Amino acid sequence: MPIKEGDIALLIIYSKKGRPKKFLIKIERKKVLHTHKGAIDIGSLIGKDWGIVTKTAKGTPVEVHRPTLADIVEKLGRSTQIIYPKDSGFILLKSGIKPGDKVVEIGTGSGALTLVLATFLGPEGKIYSYDIREKSLKMAERNLSMLGLSNVELRLKDAKEGIDESDLDAVFMDIPDPWELLPLIYPKLKPNGIFISFVPSCEQISKVALAAKETGFSLIEIHEILDREFECNEKRTRPYPRMIGHTGFIIIGRKIKSSS
Amino acid sequence: MPIKEGDIALLIIYSKKGRPKKFLIKIERKKVLHTHKGAIDIGSLIGKDWGIVTKTAKGTPVEVHRPTLADIVEKLGRSTQIIYPKDSGFILLKSGIKPGDKVVEIGTGSGALTLVLATFLGPEGKIYSYDIREKSLKMAERNLSMLGLSNVELRLKDAKEGIDESDLDAVFMDIPDPWELLPLIYPKLKPNGIFISFVPSCEQISKVALAAKETGFSLIEIHEILDREFECNEKRTRPYPRMIGHTGFIIIGRKIKSSS
Amino acid sequence: MPIKEGDIALLIIYSKKGRPKKFLIKIERKKVLHTHKGAIDIGSLIGKDWGIVTKTAKGTPVEVHRPTLADIVEKLGRSTQIIYPKDSGFILLKSGIKPGDKVVEIGTGSGALTLVLATFLGPEGKIYSYDIREKSLKMAERNLSMLGLSNVELRLKDAKEGIDESDLDAVFMDIPDPWELLPLIYPKLKPNGIFISFVPSCEQISKVALAAKETGFSLIEIHEILDREFECNEKRTRPYPRMIGHTGFIIIGRKIKSSS
Amino acid sequence: MPIKEGDIALLIIYSKKGRPKKFLIKIERKKVLHTHKGAIDIGSLIGKDWGIVTKTAKGTPVEVHRPTLADIVEKLGRSTQIIYPKDSGFILLKSGIKPGDKVVEIGTGSGALTLVLATFLGPEGKIYSYDIREKSLKMAERNLSMLGLSNVELRLKDAKEGIDESDLDAVFMDIPDPWELLPLIYPKLKPNGIFISFVPSCEQISKVALAAKETGFSLIEIHEILDREFECNEKRTRPYPRMIGHTGFIIIGRKIKSSS
Repeated sequence: MPIKEGDIALLIIYSKKGRPKKFLIKIERKKVLHTHKGAIDIGSLIGKDWGIVTKTAKGTPVEVHRPTLADIVEKLGRSTQIIYPKDSGFILLKSGIKPGDKVVEIGTGSGALTLVLATFLGPEGKIYSYDIREKSLKMAERNLSMLGLSNVELRLKDAKEGIDESDLDAVFMDIPDPWELLPLIYPKLKPNGIFISFVPSCEQISKVALAAKETGFSLIEIHEILDREFECNEKRTRPYPRMIGHTGFIIIGRKIKSSS
Repeated sequence: MPIKEGDIALLIIYSKKGRPKKFLIKIERKKVLHTHKGAIDIGSLIGKDWGIVTKTAKGTPVEVHRPTLADIVEKLGRSTQIIYPKDSGFILLKSGIKPGDKVVEIGTGSGALTLVLATFLGPEGKIYSYDIREKSLKMAERNLSMLGLSNVELRLKDAKEGIDESDLDAVFMDIPDPWELLPLIYPKLKPNGIFISFVPSCEQISKVALAAKETGFSLIEIHEILDREFECNEKRTRPYPRMIGHTGFIIIGRKIKSSS
Repeated sequence: MPIKEGDIALLIIYSKKGRPKKFLIKIERKKVLHTHKGAIDIGSLIGKDWGIVTKTAKGTPVEVHRPTLADIVEKLGRSTQIIYPKDSGFILLKSGIKPGDKVVEIGTGSGALTLVLATFLGPEGKIYSYDIREKSLKMAERNLSMLGLSNVELRLKDAKEGIDESDLDAVFMDIPDPWELLPLIYPKLKPNGIFISFVPSCEQISKVALAAKETGFSLIEIHEILDREFECNEKRTRPYPRMIGHTGFIIIGRKIKSSS
Repeated sequence: MPIKEGDIALLIIYSKKGRPKKFLIKIERKKVLHTHKGAIDIGSLIGKDWGIVTKTAKGTPVEVHRPTLADIVEKLGRSTQIIYPKDSGFILLKSGIKPGDKVVEIGTGSGALTLVLATFLGPEGKIYSYDIREKSLKMAERNLSMLGLSNVELRLKDAKEGIDESDLDAVFMDIPDPWELLPLIYPKLKPNGIFISFVPSCEQISKVALAAKETGFSLIEIHEILDREFECNEKRTRPYPRMIGHTGFIIIGRKIKSSS
């Protein structure tokens, strides 16, 4: 399907050193993007194929990519704290969820994980995402509509005051004190439902893990995912000298119930 | 939904030290599982809730979990070389695919990545998975049918002799010489389609990355994902003393086409 | 200097897969080492050069190496918990010590760090090493005398009951509760003297770091050192699939004193 | 020993967020250091104890530390490419050298490893350090004299044209093509002498390792050392979000000689 009005495009201009400068932009008929390498006529892209190389007014090549989920999430990460693809991909797989499932997210943030969950749960799935900051929900809403995802319900509410949904397949938490919510979450999960919590500090690990055990969760796992990116050119291959050294720890637990 | 005949269950018996011993088993009416801690009447679980704790004949508690995709993949990893959740979750997110897409996998192996792709592409999606080893395809078939996934077509064929499908959203390769296939893959991908290659050795990185550039792929990225697992109990929290130090490198490229 | 009686040798026999099997052995005139590949006449090595390749009675090649400090430390690590070269090399450099300095070690253990400190402090330097386990001190003594190091005084004493030495350049701690000792150590250090503590768990990090700050230490640093080992042969280069995922955290602080 | 003229001091001013701003400075009688927080009268420190806290003219506290080897090396790392303490500590331990040994270094660079070797080899030891860049040798000379180390001989010479010394305990290489030098180094090493090479790229690993094997080196090891630094305050403990992701790979081999 060629590029059409309303699509989001990822435009790339390479620096002299070969580093990609990325622009995430909505395709609109009369839009012009002004860059340091000259103007790009955005409207003229409509009807063209994805993956073409166009040019700025000054003749600099511009690659026109269809952004992946990871591109959009990484772009969000420039301005706010987000859950990165290295973490959200792992969270998705460990959560046990599949298309059509029903989940709750506590701590929408900028919606980076929300986008991932919404994409893979599909139109039959449902996400209820809680945040106490109106600003966060607004940003998440914008990002969701940009991707045409309509299976998310955003709730401006402190989850500590109650979670309205029940029979949940999984609950995701990106909040400072997830251990306080575990007793509230437990009855809202389906039998054997899963919670996943993302926390930045060492102190939070044991608070979550021990509270989870006490609440009635089992198979508790704690993971930290690291992503080493490499550079490779004709001359050499090596890990980049600088890397993201830490984002957070992922804690997972599964609801059990003693037989009586 | 309670446990029913034909389901796959993950049974857990804890060691004295609290380590989970895991059994992945199909629920059948007259089945008995013999363990070092006594027999488990599998048939009696039918109709019970997931997440209950039952007992062996000797009285040892047994947790009955509904296995996640990650559980099944990790179990496969005991007997064959697989793509682990830390890698397949990241691959999924970076591949740009979404439910309903059409992809090719070259190197089915035991089907660990196939399961992940098939789950998240959903019933509208389609995976064509090539392998030259009949044994691999048999194992993959067994695993797919165990999970009730029917959107995968397995092909006993050397992809070097030709890929039958076209207009692909993405191609995944877990083979020793992916660089040889890139020119074949390029025309089979949609405009801006993505290839992802998983290779174990340093030498393979630059072979893939440089061939990809030459073939007409752009935004080439190379990643290595590490998973540190932590133990946590009342006494202490720490990374496990032993870890999986290396599985493979993930190389990604996106098809571009110069405008003429 | 050729091999002489009383030297320690590192003998290597390679497996079919090329993996080195290592034997650390004292050179004695009438000694014979029996291996799975045949007997080695140890006495016959006297007078030969280091680095030669001799043969077992069955004709298998045996390399004769002069062991490095790292070899000896790693060998210790097979039987007891030790501070590995990746950690002790870093500790040495961050401790600010140099040949001739005077230091205290609390928690001798098997003496792995003691050997490193004793080697680099040289004959003019002095180490006082405390442990409450007689067994540890015996093992450390054996290891020190094996290496001919005579600048260490071993003390069978709980350091909590008092450190006898003062005017110390540095203090090293490998004990479960180093934070309790910091107030005792502070007055025993020279102005601007350094303490280094090695702890395995996350909980211990902040206990040490915060107590250090309170006691009057500054420039507190916390490090974790990871060692990835690679295999390399004609076919490929890659990190080993298994690695040591965690040994401990290194915490460093420097004594300061407010001017009055 | 109190602070005296000619000493090097490490002055620390903390930012509002508690981050240390570091100044490495030579103590001179009439010197004044101008900082963003006011002037520091350097001469007035003479005769004072190390580890005191003085004040700028504006009243901001300034800690006065005696710099460790690691401080000096890290400071060098700000302006040029260096071998960091995480690497040089490990290199030192794996090299098998001890005080009094004689070694050659090829690729002096800014002298970061030279300083480490010179410190631990002690006055009885000897380092011959080769570089083809006069600028590097000048910087190394300055750093060595700053630390009062006189056991290093700097050679402005391409080691490929010949190494003048022999009977060496170890050879260290930080140059782009160390494999070319291995045949030259082999005869200059003592029986069982050790070479250590530090290289940044993946391609170099196998070139060095395979050439070493061919030349007559054994027990070849390849390591990559990673240093994760943690932050810790009253609120939380966690790895720093940014880390140095890569410096280089360390390759080690030991000279052997087949018995004839």
